[in-house]
Amino acid sequence: MSAKSPDNIPDIVIGRLPLYLRALTRLRQEGKDVTSSHELGKRLDISSAQIRKDLSHFGGFGKQGTGYQIEYLIEKLQLVLQVNDEWSVAIIGAGNLGNAIAHYRGFQHRGFRIACLFDADSSKIGTKVGDFVVEDLQTMTGKIQANSIKIAMLAVPAEYAQEVADQLIEAGIRAILNYAPINIIVPDTVQVQYIDPVTHLQHMTYYLTQDK
Amino acid sequence: MSAKSPDNIPDIVIGRLPLYLRALTRLRQEGKDVTSSHELGKRLDISSAQIRKDLSHFGGFGKQGTGYQIEYLIEKLQLVLQVNDEWSVAIIGAGNLGNAIAHYRGFQHRGFRIACLFDADSSKIGTKVGDFVVEDLQTMTGKIQANSIKIAMLAVPAEYAQEVADQLIEAGIRAILNYAPINIIVPDTVQVQYIDPVTHLQHMTYYLTQDK
Repeated sequence: MSAKSPDNIPDIVIGRLPLYLRALTRLRQEGKDVTSSHELGKRLDISSAQIRKDLSHFGGFGKQGTGYQIEYLIEKLQLVLQVNDEWSVAIIGAGNLGNAIAHYRGFQHRGFRIACLFDADSSKIGTKVGDFVVEDLQTMTGKIQANSIKIAMLAVPAEYAQEVADQLIEAGIRAILNYAPINIIVPDTVQVQYIDPVTHLQHMTYYLTQDK
Repeated sequence: MSAKSPDNIPDIVIGRLPLYLRALTRLRQEGKDVTSSHELGKRLDISSAQIRKDLSHFGGFGKQGTGYQIEYLIEKLQLVLQVNDEWSVAIIGAGNLGNAIAHYRGFQHRGFRIACLFDADSSKIGTKVGDFVVEDLQTMTGKIQANSIKIAMLAVPAEYAQEVADQLIEAGIRAILNYAPINIIVPDTVQVQYIDPVTHLQHMTYYLTQDK
């Protein structure tokens, strides 16, 4: 439940822009220069009319009949989503999940750079995880403030998620990607998104026929 | 883009049911027996009217004024989502991400049981990851068929995702949770959901003020 867009563009439209950006980046990797709403739509299973309508909120970016210049559209979408520059991101929790996130290479060139990794477990503090040294959770607030970090990924057990989220917000964090399987309560000025594989699995099992 | 619900209930409603189930399970853990659409709504940042409307698709489950019996509602939602029993799930990819998924404890009691873990890398095949021995990707089709596995989590690099997805579907998989940052093309009879942290982060940065 994100706050209203500053330009009153529906949040569901904003949520599709990262998918467009990802597909366009892929097309560029494949050596393509130009694409169409039809080609994008096929890749994303979204109608070409929907894609044209979504992009029209931002000026359209393409001329009828000539398609979209991929490089130009990538740059424009990066500007709209504010990922033309890199954001520093803090990871909280150095368990298996925090570990996997710290090793994940998918952040680079997409607007994000892992800056630090915190845990409360004294047996983990000071150890290396990928390129990072796990830092003491007690130093988190100071570090986040000193580096003006605005984004955090929360990979702590569910029972600590709200408490740590409160600390993060107090420290100046404005966007939290929560991997803990629990909803957290935040002020309207803070963005939250969730990653919980089980909610996705349960969404799909609804449609499965019962022939386990 | 899921297929139409068998009961013509909008997919967006189905997508919220796992959130209700998660919040109800949490309330039960806290020792509560009864809740209300108001209490649920507060926890989930969804209006109580929306919750009542969503649940009314399935019969309502509550009486005006007396609230919802948590245990009863949990059981009904588990039936609707078909997670009253456990589904076996295959993980494809034993890198950092597959490793984290294999160790994740959040599946238990929520309808899923990791059954097997495959990788193509001969240096990984035969090694232990948590409770699992990594199996050869070449044996995947046979194993999935022999065990009638219907659900897979795809944690392979983007460039292999489509190829492995095709093999999975050929083997009988009907629901894929794709962690690879690429859209995959599947027949209408197959469900796909995506987990890509960057799309969530980019969705949130749209709303952030530029004071990095």
